[in-house]
Amino acid sequence: MASYIATVKVMLKKGILDVQGKTVENSLKTLGFNQISQMRIGKHITFSIEAGNPNEAKKIAHDATEKLLYNPNIETYEINVAELT
Amino acid sequence: MASYIATVKVMLKKGILDVQGKTVENSLKTLGFNQISQMRIGKHITFSIEAGNPNEAKKIAHDATEKLLYNPNIETYEINVAELT
Repeated sequence: MASYIATVKVMLKKGILDVQGKTVENSLKTLGFNQISQMRIGKHITFSIEAGNPNEAKKIAHDATEKLLYNPNIETYEINVAELT
Repeated sequence: MASYIATVKVMLKKGILDVQGKTVENSLKTLGFNQISQMRIGKHITFSIEAGNPNEAKKIAHDATEKLLYNPNIETYEINVAELT
């Protein structure tokens, strides 16, 4: 068994209004940051996985994401799994 | 002027209990994912910046993060700025 670190980035789909991002962007404009636009705020999730090999670790990360970490109706995700050295 | 894409990753500091991460980790264990541990959930923020050069874009991203995007008491951040081609 080896240890792996999984990183899952969960973002709202492109067509979905990101209310939190828009709100923060508007606050930044109030503070004078007029050069900033198109703000999107998603989740950055990291966790450790104990697995026999990299493919098994990737499968666990993928299954966990599909089962609990993202909402398929409105979100997309990207997974990265690296062996802990 | 050129367009840049900033990515800001905001995570809780190491010593701070990540209640959301712990809750999701426990739910995953209930679903049978016993190989998963040390889950941390942070924010993944992306936005566009209009700036004259890369250094100016980086400064804007840094200032915006310091002013509004993170809580210095309990969070750390990483910024990445890339020119949009």
